[in-house]
Amino acid sequence: MIIKPINKVNQTNTNNSQISIKDMFNKDFEKIKSYPGSKKIYIEGKLHDIKVAMREISLNDEKEKFIVYDTSGPFTDSDYEVDITKGLPKIRLSWVQNKKEAEKIEIKENLEKEFSFNKTNTLYYRAKKNECVTQMYYAKKGIITEEMEYAAIRENQGLEEYFKKNEYKSKNAKLPVFPVSPEFVRDEIAAGRAVIPANINHPEAEPMIIGRNFLVKINSNIGNSAISSGIAEEVLKSVWSCYWGADTVMDLSTGKNIHNIREWILRNSPVPIGTVPLYQALEKVDGIAEELSWEIYRDTLIEQCVQGVDYFTIHAGLLRSHVPLTVNRLTGIVSRGGAIMAKWSLAHKKENFLYENFNEICEILKSFDAAVSLGDGLRPGSIEDANDSAQFAELETLGELTKKAWEHNVQVIIEGPGHVPMNLIEENMTRQLKSCHEAPFYTLGPITTDIAPGYDHITSAIGGAMIAQAGASMLCYVTPKEHLGLPNKEDVREGVLAYKLAAHAADLAKGHPGARLRDKAMSKARFSFRWEDQFNLSLDPDKAKKFHDETLPSDASKKSLFCSMCGPKFCAMKISTDVNECFNEENDNKK
Amino acid sequence: MIIKPINKVNQTNTNNSQISIKDMFNKDFEKIKSYPGSKKIYIEGKLHDIKVAMREISLNDEKEKFIVYDTSGPFTDSDYEVDITKGLPKIRLSWVQNKKEAEKIEIKENLEKEFSFNKTNTLYYRAKKNECVTQMYYAKKGIITEEMEYAAIRENQGLEEYFKKNEYKSKNAKLPVFPVSPEFVRDEIAAGRAVIPANINHPEAEPMIIGRNFLVKINSNIGNSAISSGIAEEVLKSVWSCYWGADTVMDLSTGKNIHNIREWILRNSPVPIGTVPLYQALEKVDGIAEELSWEIYRDTLIEQCVQGVDYFTIHAGLLRSHVPLTVNRLTGIVSRGGAIMAKWSLAHKKENFLYENFNEICEILKSFDAAVSLGDGLRPGSIEDANDSAQFAELETLGELTKKAWEHNVQVIIEGPGHVPMNLIEENMTRQLKSCHEAPFYTLGPITTDIAPGYDHITSAIGGAMIAQAGASMLCYVTPKEHLGLPNKEDVREGVLAYKLAAHAADLAKGHPGARLRDKAMSKARFSFRWEDQFNLSLDPDKAKKFHDETLPSDASKKSLFCSMCGPKFCAMKISTDVNECFNEENDNKK
Repeated sequence: MIIKPINKVNQTNTNNSQISIKDMFNKDFEKIKSYPGSKKIYIEGKLHDIKVAMREISLNDEKEKFIVYDTSGPFTDSDYEVDITKGLPKIRLSWVQNKKEAEKIEIKENLEKEFSFNKTNTLYYRAKKNECVTQMYYAKKGIITEEMEYAAIRENQGLEEYFKKNEYKSKNAKLPVFPVSPEFVRDEIAAGRAVIPANINHPEAEPMIIGRNFLVKINSNIGNSAISSGIAEEVLKSVWSCYWGADTVMDLSTGKNIHNIREWILRNSPVPIGTVPLYQALEKVDGIAEELSWEIYRDTLIEQCVQGVDYFTIHAGLLRSHVPLTVNRLTGIVSRGGAIMAKWSLAHKKENFLYENFNEICEILKSFDAAVSLGDGLRPGSIEDANDSAQFAELETLGELTKKAWEHNVQVIIEGPGHVPMNLIEENMTRQLKSCHEAPFYTLGPITTDIAPGYDHITSAIGGAMIAQAGASMLCYVTPKEHLGLPNKEDVREGVLAYKLAAHAADLAKGHPGARLRDKAMSKARFSFRWEDQFNLSLDPDKAKKFHDETLPSDASKKSLFCSMCGPKFCAMKISTDVNECFNEENDNKK
Repeated sequence: MIIKPINKVNQTNTNNSQISIKDMFNKDFEKIKSYPGSKKIYIEGKLHDIKVAMREISLNDEKEKFIVYDTSGPFTDSDYEVDITKGLPKIRLSWVQNKKEAEKIEIKENLEKEFSFNKTNTLYYRAKKNECVTQMYYAKKGIITEEMEYAAIRENQGLEEYFKKNEYKSKNAKLPVFPVSPEFVRDEIAAGRAVIPANINHPEAEPMIIGRNFLVKINSNIGNSAISSGIAEEVLKSVWSCYWGADTVMDLSTGKNIHNIREWILRNSPVPIGTVPLYQALEKVDGIAEELSWEIYRDTLIEQCVQGVDYFTIHAGLLRSHVPLTVNRLTGIVSRGGAIMAKWSLAHKKENFLYENFNEICEILKSFDAAVSLGDGLRPGSIEDANDSAQFAELETLGELTKKAWEHNVQVIIEGPGHVPMNLIEENMTRQLKSCHEAPFYTLGPITTDIAPGYDHITSAIGGAMIAQAGASMLCYVTPKEHLGLPNKEDVREGVLAYKLAAHAADLAKGHPGARLRDKAMSKARFSFRWEDQFNLSLDPDKAKKFHDETLPSDASKKSLFCSMCGPKFCAMKISTDVNECFNEENDNKK
């Protein structure tokens, strides 16, 4: 198999461009060898020889350690030397090599391409003929893979023993099983209620699980456009996303160097990478939707599978018959993939070729264990269009395709809206569960009002938190730049944080024990005026510290029993501490 | 009656300090004579000779006008010359003068005080002996006041005729009456389901209504602390709050110059001002809670009533018997007022003097029509403490006090939490409605997770939107600085915007027709690539434009059919327009 990278690149010195990309990355890459007060730890597996990366926060005055889920990969391991031209350690390589269903394939690439990632005749894997290497395949066979155990340990945040000893008393716990066992992970994957996106050609990725009986996950979208950004910027955004907590990253590049950007991102990504292969396919036909064909798409899909993309958004559910349902919409079709496929369908007067060739798509995906994220090409692009007949017609087709994919043991996620007012959010979730047979729901927000461009990370964090509480498994972030322009690094951070807190709020609402413990540790630190611990336990320690230090920068103020909000005499927590002491004294006197 | 300002100010040249405050204000006061593409308009009343200030947005290519609710006051009227030493026009003065229940009172103030607002023997009003001047009093008598008609016109956003012609089809409308009539406003106030906070001594304020059958309102907290800020900064934050959409402002100053800061804010505020009189009372006893007394509090309350404060947070519901319920909490008592009263109660082994003297409090309030906002001194300060017995015990007492206040025709709002996980939010609302007899609920967020300091405007916008959807009438904003320090001007903007969009999302969810129209206008502009109209229709036109212009600053790009997010070939809306055209052509051919 020969993959065909886009061929509009100049033949210049590879070495120079490599160095320049590395330099550009390092120039902007802040030294984030570790989070403040934290270190990387590794928890060993019991079934497999695996080491699960976690983050341990040291609490100053408590002599306690607090372990949290960590998406940042080796970048925050103080023993790891960052060099993006080398890529991350391939932790899953031996696991893949041990799969008897897989075989090596050799890829010859054009090594002279400008900006290409440095590799020569690299070895890749795929399933042997008539074999399958998907997590769902193994799960159904009763096999607990390394990936499953890894994901299970991560979900418990190193707290298995704690959960076994302390029965978790939630006022409204919806989650069924704690601690999460590898067997439970296997069971959920076999049932299609959860997925582990883990392409066998992305050995750098640390396995994670997406499903509504697990921690709510978030995705960060990055990628250049024809107007803006390049390789170093996009790798930086990718690494930066993971540092702040993105569980997966989608590379949605539509500009120059699509193949190469993806390669750099994949080789440096500790989290699963998703793409929309249609974008590269369209780029190959110079952006003219009518010139797309199944063959071009298929080759692109294979190219990206071989590279190691972990999941693909595929707009196979948008049927030709759905298009008329969108004509009277206020904002038509706002999914790029959806609009492209609708245009192709109308131009050719043919059914969507992704729908027509869905079986072959599954055959390809199952050879690499790339998951399919069934795209909602007809998601509403405005409050006015929410929950309309077009949206729900497509959802039914996504349900039909889900069953087809599962027949091939391909793992499935379902994408969801979009713009939805709060009162219509719940209906999206209940319909999705029913129409799509409980496959994980992966929503874009939803945005709960159209009128706040510049703040759509917030309009959509509201909707995201609500739909996650109702059962969505993963939230695709929205940055402050949504509707206005391509997000930069700071926008990525704001978007990730807004979603991280929304996902966490949903975990709390669902009664996730690990989530609740962190809030408890934080509030305990707050009531004890342990400022450093408050910063370090927070989702963004740097910002918390920076904000505190704007008015009280001294070291002494890190020990003070107040902040500049209320000053020394008006701090309720300080007075409350006095009240408690006073009350306890009173009680002591009575004894 | 002689009011007693705090007397720890130096006797220096008033004139100089006035000029310096004005200069400091003007230096930081950005020229905001109007919002971009907008002008101030005034809609005339039908029952009264009143002019209701609204904002009209001109839509470029549509030759349409769009009228929106406007909280910014005269500051955005191009005919108004801003001079904060003069204060705003007293639009309600003649209304007050016409009230036969009111009489003039003369106040002699110490004019030599540093930083005092420039006034000499100013006339103030209060109710005659045994009379009442509250909106509730008039409402129960069947009288529609100027304030009621003003509020009704505002609620309709100049769209009465539209609402009469177009039956509003909401999929889940919870709102009963459109267009809002002055009679409906009167009815809601008489029933206690809504309040118009409008002290007769705050004639600068433009009347507005708080109640769950009206638009959701938001409050901005400002005020200095002993650590930070002064008069010019706080007046600026107040004006700035209104510019970005705060419906009321609370001056929570606890630092220097409490009386004077409040005077400057009131005289320059187009929105109702709230305070917590306990803070100034505590300042008068040098911050020692035990030295507080009913007499000091009462005098402070009268002082602030005379100044024109429109509503007061009064922590009268925290009983001595409630305090033991907080001892085992993770974060004790986190309300400043609550902690102070608990400390006083324990020290004196007496019942809360605000509870004991509530009848006299009501006698004072009804003489000025200051509303009472019954403080939730026992609101939870952490996820762990949410919905506990302490919180709900106090809520019951607030319900008891509500009935007492209503007997005096004092308008009542109930304050609510705090920190609450999403799954426990609804219970707060249902309990409040039941315990407090449907008095408007005014909540602080709630914050839905403790672990995101630096982002608590977002953690709480999530909770705020949800509780407003469930029926809360007003949301007290939280800024990014919450838990970390005193908010500055930029934090105020971020806080107001986060809450403005949360309130609006709730209005949409409740089916408010005016809210929906704005989203529709925005999305129509978006689908037509009318960039300027998108900016101008948004809640923060400046930020929307700035973000867009970061990557595409040229004038030409304001006409382009794409932005830097997707570039020219990948814009879904552009492709979707092609699809619509293609589809329409196809249909034409068939005819």
